[in-house]
Amino acid sequence: MKRALITLLGAGALVGGVAVVADPKPDDAVEYRQGIMMALGWNVGPMGAMVKGDIPFDAGQFAFHAGRVAVLAPMALEGFPKSSAAAESHALPALWENYADFEERMKKLEESSAKLAEVARSGDEGAMKSQFGDTVKVCKGCHDEYQEEH
Amino acid sequence: MKRALITLLGAGALVGGVAVVADPKPDDAVEYRQGIMMALGWNVGPMGAMVKGDIPFDAGQFAFHAGRVAVLAPMALEGFPKSSAAAESHALPALWENYADFEERMKKLEESSAKLAEVARSGDEGAMKSQFGDTVKVCKGCHDEYQEEH
Repeated sequence: MKRALITLLGAGALVGGVAVVADPKPDDAVEYRQGIMMALGWNVGPMGAMVKGDIPFDAGQFAFHAGRVAVLAPMALEGFPKSSAAAESHALPALWENYADFEERMKKLEESSAKLAEVARSGDEGAMKSQFGDTVKVCKGCHDEYQEEH
Repeated sequence: MKRALITLLGAGALVGGVAVVADPKPDDAVEYRQGIMMALGWNVGPMGAMVKGDIPFDAGQFAFHAGRVAVLAPMALEGFPKSSAAAESHALPALWENYADFEERMKKLEESSAKLAEVARSGDEGAMKSQFGDTVKVCKGCHDEYQEEH
């Protein structure tokens, strides 16, 4: 992590209203986005287990994880700069060929997870489970389309 | 990431008022915490470059990254469950031997980065740079103490 910290102590820029690390090294971008995806999975997991009934439903815990996902989701896109298209990763060529679609799916993820966090604050179990299903469908759609099997 | 998602579709529990993935696989915990650290560095980097003068100071961009760090910092500790002490990582044995001190440092990081995000909203360049120095000192203290050189 020290290496990464030093590497990233580089340059940043405000692009399209969103602050991003300017011209990040492709491998750093891959490592960053994989970290965000891991953190998303870390939080989606317990919610999924509750929805499936593998563990008891706990509205407070569900809302905690939903809140985490809602703040993590908007962090993912900047980890996919076009400059990282050639870097070794699980992203399929189709992602870079359909970048506008990919961006749209990421935007949908952001909206869907924000709604999930909002619904979760209501404590309505049925609504939470339903919205979780919608959010996971957005995750899955993008993984199916743009991530190689591994 | 599919593997991780599936692996994490396990069990969660509410411990000490904080929702965590219950009994995560040690290697998943390492991967998760390294992801969070990478995401922290991704955001600390551009702020550091501004403070050092490598890129122009931009209050809006600085505040964006400070906000990101403030929401990421509280996510780190749960990636260090004691069950992961034996997993291959850059954590030194001292971390597990001084876990209360480690937890205290993590709490300090959370507080310091929350303050950084708050100060950043003020737009006061001097205060932002000063608070950034304080926050980075907390990062560095913990890395020096509990992370092996790599």
